[in-house]
Amino acid sequence: MADAVSSQSSSSVREDGSFDRLSIDTIRTLAMDAVQKANSGHPGTPMALAPVAYTLWRDFLRYDPATPDWPNRDRFVLSIGHASMLLYALLHLAGVEEIDADGRKTGKLAVSLDDIKQFRQLDSKTPGHPEYRITTGVETTTGPLGQGCGNSVGMAIAERALAARFNRPEFNLFDHDVYVLCGDGDMMEGVSGEAASVAGHLALSNLCWIYDSNHITIEGATEIAFTEDVGKRFEGYGWNVIHVDDANDTKAIAAALKTFCETNDKPTLIIVHSVIGWGSPRAGSEKAHGEALGEENVRLTKQAYGWPEDAHFLVPEGVAEALNKALTDHGGKARDDWQALFESYRNSFPTEAAEFNLLRSGKLSEGWQADIPTFPADPKGIASRDAGGKVINAIGPHIPMLIGGAADLSPSTKTNLTFQGAGSFEPGSYDGRNVHYGVREHAMGAIANGMALTYLRSYTATFLVFADYMRAPIRLAAIMEVPTIFVFTHDSIGVGEDGPTHQPIEHLATLRAIPGLDTIRPGDANEVAEAWKIALEHTHEPTALILSRQALPTLDRTKYAAADGLRKGAYILADTGGGDPQIILMATGSEVSLVVDAHEKLVADGIRSRVVSMPSWYLFEQQDAAYRNSIFPRSVRARLAVEQAGSMGWDRYVGFDGATITMSTFGASAPLAKLQEKFGFTLENVVKVARELIVKNE
Amino acid sequence: MADAVSSQSSSSVREDGSFDRLSIDTIRTLAMDAVQKANSGHPGTPMALAPVAYTLWRDFLRYDPATPDWPNRDRFVLSIGHASMLLYALLHLAGVEEIDADGRKTGKLAVSLDDIKQFRQLDSKTPGHPEYRITTGVETTTGPLGQGCGNSVGMAIAERALAARFNRPEFNLFDHDVYVLCGDGDMMEGVSGEAASVAGHLALSNLCWIYDSNHITIEGATEIAFTEDVGKRFEGYGWNVIHVDDANDTKAIAAALKTFCETNDKPTLIIVHSVIGWGSPRAGSEKAHGEALGEENVRLTKQAYGWPEDAHFLVPEGVAEALNKALTDHGGKARDDWQALFESYRNSFPTEAAEFNLLRSGKLSEGWQADIPTFPADPKGIASRDAGGKVINAIGPHIPMLIGGAADLSPSTKTNLTFQGAGSFEPGSYDGRNVHYGVREHAMGAIANGMALTYLRSYTATFLVFADYMRAPIRLAAIMEVPTIFVFTHDSIGVGEDGPTHQPIEHLATLRAIPGLDTIRPGDANEVAEAWKIALEHTHEPTALILSRQALPTLDRTKYAAADGLRKGAYILADTGGGDPQIILMATGSEVSLVVDAHEKLVADGIRSRVVSMPSWYLFEQQDAAYRNSIFPRSVRARLAVEQAGSMGWDRYVGFDGATITMSTFGASAPLAKLQEKFGFTLENVVKVARELIVKNE
Repeated sequence: MADAVSSQSSSSVREDGSFDRLSIDTIRTLAMDAVQKANSGHPGTPMALAPVAYTLWRDFLRYDPATPDWPNRDRFVLSIGHASMLLYALLHLAGVEEIDADGRKTGKLAVSLDDIKQFRQLDSKTPGHPEYRITTGVETTTGPLGQGCGNSVGMAIAERALAARFNRPEFNLFDHDVYVLCGDGDMMEGVSGEAASVAGHLALSNLCWIYDSNHITIEGATEIAFTEDVGKRFEGYGWNVIHVDDANDTKAIAAALKTFCETNDKPTLIIVHSVIGWGSPRAGSEKAHGEALGEENVRLTKQAYGWPEDAHFLVPEGVAEALNKALTDHGGKARDDWQALFESYRNSFPTEAAEFNLLRSGKLSEGWQADIPTFPADPKGIASRDAGGKVINAIGPHIPMLIGGAADLSPSTKTNLTFQGAGSFEPGSYDGRNVHYGVREHAMGAIANGMALTYLRSYTATFLVFADYMRAPIRLAAIMEVPTIFVFTHDSIGVGEDGPTHQPIEHLATLRAIPGLDTIRPGDANEVAEAWKIALEHTHEPTALILSRQALPTLDRTKYAAADGLRKGAYILADTGGGDPQIILMATGSEVSLVVDAHEKLVADGIRSRVVSMPSWYLFEQQDAAYRNSIFPRSVRARLAVEQAGSMGWDRYVGFDGATITMSTFGASAPLAKLQEKFGFTLENVVKVARELIVKNE
Repeated sequence: MADAVSSQSSSSVREDGSFDRLSIDTIRTLAMDAVQKANSGHPGTPMALAPVAYTLWRDFLRYDPATPDWPNRDRFVLSIGHASMLLYALLHLAGVEEIDADGRKTGKLAVSLDDIKQFRQLDSKTPGHPEYRITTGVETTTGPLGQGCGNSVGMAIAERALAARFNRPEFNLFDHDVYVLCGDGDMMEGVSGEAASVAGHLALSNLCWIYDSNHITIEGATEIAFTEDVGKRFEGYGWNVIHVDDANDTKAIAAALKTFCETNDKPTLIIVHSVIGWGSPRAGSEKAHGEALGEENVRLTKQAYGWPEDAHFLVPEGVAEALNKALTDHGGKARDDWQALFESYRNSFPTEAAEFNLLRSGKLSEGWQADIPTFPADPKGIASRDAGGKVINAIGPHIPMLIGGAADLSPSTKTNLTFQGAGSFEPGSYDGRNVHYGVREHAMGAIANGMALTYLRSYTATFLVFADYMRAPIRLAAIMEVPTIFVFTHDSIGVGEDGPTHQPIEHLATLRAIPGLDTIRPGDANEVAEAWKIALEHTHEPTALILSRQALPTLDRTKYAAADGLRKGAYILADTGGGDPQIILMATGSEVSLVVDAHEKLVADGIRSRVVSMPSWYLFEQQDAAYRNSIFPRSVRARLAVEQAGSMGWDRYVGFDGATITMSTFGASAPLAKLQEKFGFTLENVVKVARELIVKNE
C-alpha cells in the first residue's frame, strides 16, 4: 500500500478496491495522528469504522459539500461522539465548505488539515466531541451516549412532517434520510431503546442506525455486561435488522445500505461487527478506545497499513478530490435539482415557499400572536397549565411547524393542539401536530431536539418532577443553543395527594442552574401568554415553561403592572411608593398571588411594601445593573422570597438579611391546602415572616 | 355474589372459586372506595390486577404477615406505584403487622381499615404512592415509572450476593424471589429496559416481572404510542416470556408463576392482559386510570360485582382471615424454619451469623477503618478519584457487603475493588464484589437502591456529567433515606479535552439541591478518606461523592487543619489571626489548593486572611449557628468562593458584598491549563479578585 500512496492520484482505480482502501486508511491515519498529537482522544473507533463511514458517504449520503446547509440533505449523526475524528476526517476529505452563523460561505473549509492538527485545542473547530454551531457539517452535538440516536428520530420525524406539509404532487421537496453511527454504549442506554420504540411505532423508514458492535467496552469485553440479542430486541421494536459480519467488507456494507434504501415500512438497524483499533497492536482491546495509541503503536499501525511510517497527517493525492467528486456528483446534483424544483415550487405554491423560507430563517410569521387571549381579572382564575393550553391553541394555527407532544400526559399537561386539523402525528397522518411520545421522557427530549435541529418548533410536556428523566437533552439543547421548548406542569407541592415522588422540590433550581436555559414560571394566565411569546421568540435558547396543576388567580392588571414585565424576568407588580419600601416580597408562579395578598395586607396596615413577580431569573440576569437595582435596591435589606420549592439560589436576591419561605424537605401526600398549612405557604405566615423581617432590619 | 358476601365465612369454599372471587372483589372495592373517599387516586389498575396480586400473594409469595422484616422473605415490588391501593388492600387483608423504625412490633396492623379510609391524607400510612419507611410492608418507594423495576434487579442481585456470602451446605439461608407488578409505563421507560438487560445478562432466575398489559395509557389506547412486541424484546434480553390472556384467569396466572418458580437460568416476564377498571362502566377506558370513578360508577360497579351497593370499605367475614392463614401456613412456616436454621447456623458458623446480624442492624464491623491510609503532604498529589480507589480498597475487605460498580467506566472512576477475591459479580461468580453495569447509568442507580434496600452497602460510579442520566434514583434514595453511595468523578472542567458535553457545570448545584442527599466534594486525598468514612457511617442519607480527574496537591496537615474537619461540612484550614479576617476564601474539591495558595500570597502581603474548605454544604447546614458563625462571621463581608462549577447556591455564603469565581457558561474542549486561564481559575485571578473585595469592603 505504501506504493499506492504515491501512485494513486485519482479515483479512477476502483475496481480492485485499492483506492477505496487508500481513502479509508487516510481517515484512519488522520484519526490516529490527530489523537496522538493532542495526546488525548479516541482513535480506535474511527479506525474500525472508517470503511463503513467512507462507504456511506461516498455512495449513499445525499450531501453537497458545497452546500452543507441544503434543506433536503441526508443527515449524518455521529452518536458515538467520542469518535469525532471520524467525522472531522470525513468533513475534511469531502471538502465540505464552511458556512457562518448567517448562512454565508466563509471561503474556508469546514475542517482544514490545520484544524485537524488543532484537535481538542482551545477555540479549535475540532473539539473533543462534535459540537453543533462550532463546526459546519456537525448536525448535532453528541457525546453523552444515546443522545444522537434520540436526535435522529426527531430528525426523521421532522423530514416526515416537512414532507407532509410542503410536498405536493410532482414536488417532492423533502425525501431525505437520516443515518446514525452508534455503538455498544448507545445500545445500552435506555434513551436509545425508548427512541427506537418510537421510531418503530412511527414506521420511520427514513431512519438508518448503523450499530458498531465491536465487543469491547471501557471495562473490557462486552460479554461482562452486554450479552443481549440486540437484533432480536430491535425486531421487537418493529425494525428491519441487517447483519454485516466485517466492518472491512465494504460490499456487504453497501448491500445493507441498499436494503435500507429499499425498505419503506420501518426503520433499519445495520449491525456491523468491527475490530476496534483495526490494524494496530491494540486492535480488539479496550486500550484502543480512549487514549492515544502512542508513537510506537502509531508507527506499527502505519506499517501494517502499508503507510509511510513517518508521514503525519498525510492525505495522499486524489483521496480528498475523489470523495468530494463522488459526493458532488450525487449530492451536489441532487441539490441543484432541488434548487430548480424549489424555484418552480415557488411559482406554483408561493405561500408554501414563503412559509418554508421563513422557517429556514428562524423567524415567525407576521401576526402569529394575533389570537393570543388576554385573560380578564379573576380571583378564582385558572391553572397555568390550562392557560398554557389556551395559548398554544391560539398560536398553533399561525405556526404550522409548531409540533409537540407529551410523555403520555397531555390530558394533564393540557398541551394537546385541539384545533381543526391539528390531529396526531402517526403513520398515515404525518401531517398531525401532536406527537404521542408514550412514557418516554428521555427520548422525548432528545427527539424534540432533533426536530428543532430540522426547522421545527418543537415542544415537549410532562410533569416537572420527571424533568429528572430528561436532563441530558435539556442540557444539550442549551449547549447547542436550539430553541426547544420544554413544558413542565404540576410544578410544586401543588400536586397534592400524589405525594413526594411526584412533587418537585429541587427541580426549579436544577433547571435555573443550566447555562443558557430560560426557565420561566409564570404567575398567572397573562404571564403564561407572555412566557409562550418569549419562548417562541427565542432563537438560541431553549425554554423550560413551568406551570401549575392548581388554579391561580388572574391578577387585575389595571391594578397591578402589565404582564409583559415578564420580558425583563422580574418586575414590580405594585409598590406603595413614598420612599424605599420597608419590605420587598418576591415570588414566582403559584406564589405570586400569595405575596400579592400579603402585600395588600401589609399596605392596609400602613407598611411601605413592594411586590415583585420574578418568573425568569435568566431574563432578569440579562438586564443592566440599573434595572436590576431599580427592582431590588441595595438599601432595602428586608426581602422575602416565597416559592413552593427548595431555597437554592434565592439567597442571591434575599441576601443575609432577608428570608425565604421555601421547602427544606420533600413534600407529602395530602390535599394541597393541608400541605400549604404544613409547610407555611399561608397568607398568615407570609405576613408574619414579612413583619419579622421589617422589625429585624429596622 | 351479594349472597356470598354474607354467607362465606371461611376459606373452606374454594373449589368453585367463589371465595377467591369474594377476596378479589374485596380488594377491588376497597380500592374503589378509598379513591372515591379521597376523591383522588388510581382505581382502575387495582381493579384489573386484584386477581393477579391475590393469586401471587395467596399461593406463591413466601411472606410472613407476623414478621414482614424476615430477611429471606420474597420481595413484592409495586412498580406501578400509582396502584398503591392494591398494595394497601393486600397488606390489610393479609394482616401484616406493623414494625417500627427500631424493628419492634407496635401491636398495630401495618394498614388498618381506618388507615385505608385515610388514603392520601396528611400523615396517613396510606400516601398516594407507596413510601418505604412510612408503611410496613412497602419494600421500596415507587411512583416514578420504571424505578421499581430497576430496584427489583438490585434486590435480586442482593439475594444472589447474600446467598453466595452466607449460604453453606445444608444452610440455604437465602433463596428468596423478587416479584414485580409493572405496567405499560414501566415498559416504555428506558430505565426498565436497561435493568432488564442487566437482569438477563446476570441470569437472575429469582426475578419475576408481571407486566400488566392493559392496552390503555393516559392519552388513550396504547396503540397511539406503544406497538412494539414487548415479549420479543425481552427474549432479546435473555428472559423467559410467558403470556396470560386474561387477568381474571387465576389458574393461568398460577401456572405462569409456577413456570417462573421452575425456571433456573433466566429471569421471567409474565405478560398479563387485563382490562383497566374491570367491571366498572369505565372498564377498558383511560378514564378508569387516574381519578375517582364517581359515586354512581362505584355503585354500578359494585352492582356488577354482586356487591352490596351501599356498603363502603366492606371486608366480608373470613376474607382477611383466609389470606392471613394462607400466607402464614406457607410463609410463616418458612420463616419459623428459617429461624431454626439460623440458630443452628449461628452454632456452626458464628462469625458469619454475627456478620449478617451486623448487616441487618446497619452497623459496621469493629475496626473497619483500620486500613484507611493517611496520605502524606505532597505538592503534586494525586487525583481524588485515585485517592478514592485506594480508600475503598482499604475499606473493602472489612465490609464484605460493600458491593459496587460503574457504568462501564471503572478504569476511569477507579472504583474497582482489586484486592484478592474481590472479583466480578457475574453468573457463576455471584460472590464477586464488582458489578459491571454497562453504559446504563439510570438502571445502575435504581439497582443500587434495590441492593441498599436488601442489606447491601452499594455504590455506583460514573462521570459527574452523567448524573443527569440517573437523577430519579438519586432522588428516590434521598426520599427513602437509604445510604446508597453515588461516586461521581471527572467533576469539573478538569475533564479538559472531552469538552462541554463532558464537563459538569450545574451538576454540583443540582445535587446539593436534593433534600437529604449529602454531596461531598473533598479537597485532597485525606478529605477523600474522611468523605468515604462519612458516607459509610450514614444510615439514612445517600451520599454523592464528587471526585476529580486531575491530580490535586495533598495538603500538609501539620500546617493546615486536620481533614476530619470535613465532618462538619466546612472548616477553617488556616487563619492569620490577629482579629477578624479581612477576607474569607472558600472552596471545595480541586479549588481548595488554589485558594490555599492565594491565601498564602495574601498573608505574605500582610493581609489577614482565612481559608475555608467546604466539602459538604449538607453537613455544614446541620451544624449549630455558633459553629456556622465561627466559620463565617457576619461582620466579615469580603468573601470569595472559588469553584469550577456554576455559581448557584454560593450567594448563601458570599452574600451581596462577596464574589464568586465560578462558571457562568458551559466549558470548552482544551487542555485544563488553557481552560483555567480562560475561565479565571488561576492564582493571579483569585488574588486579584480577593484584593478588590478587600478594598470594596473596607
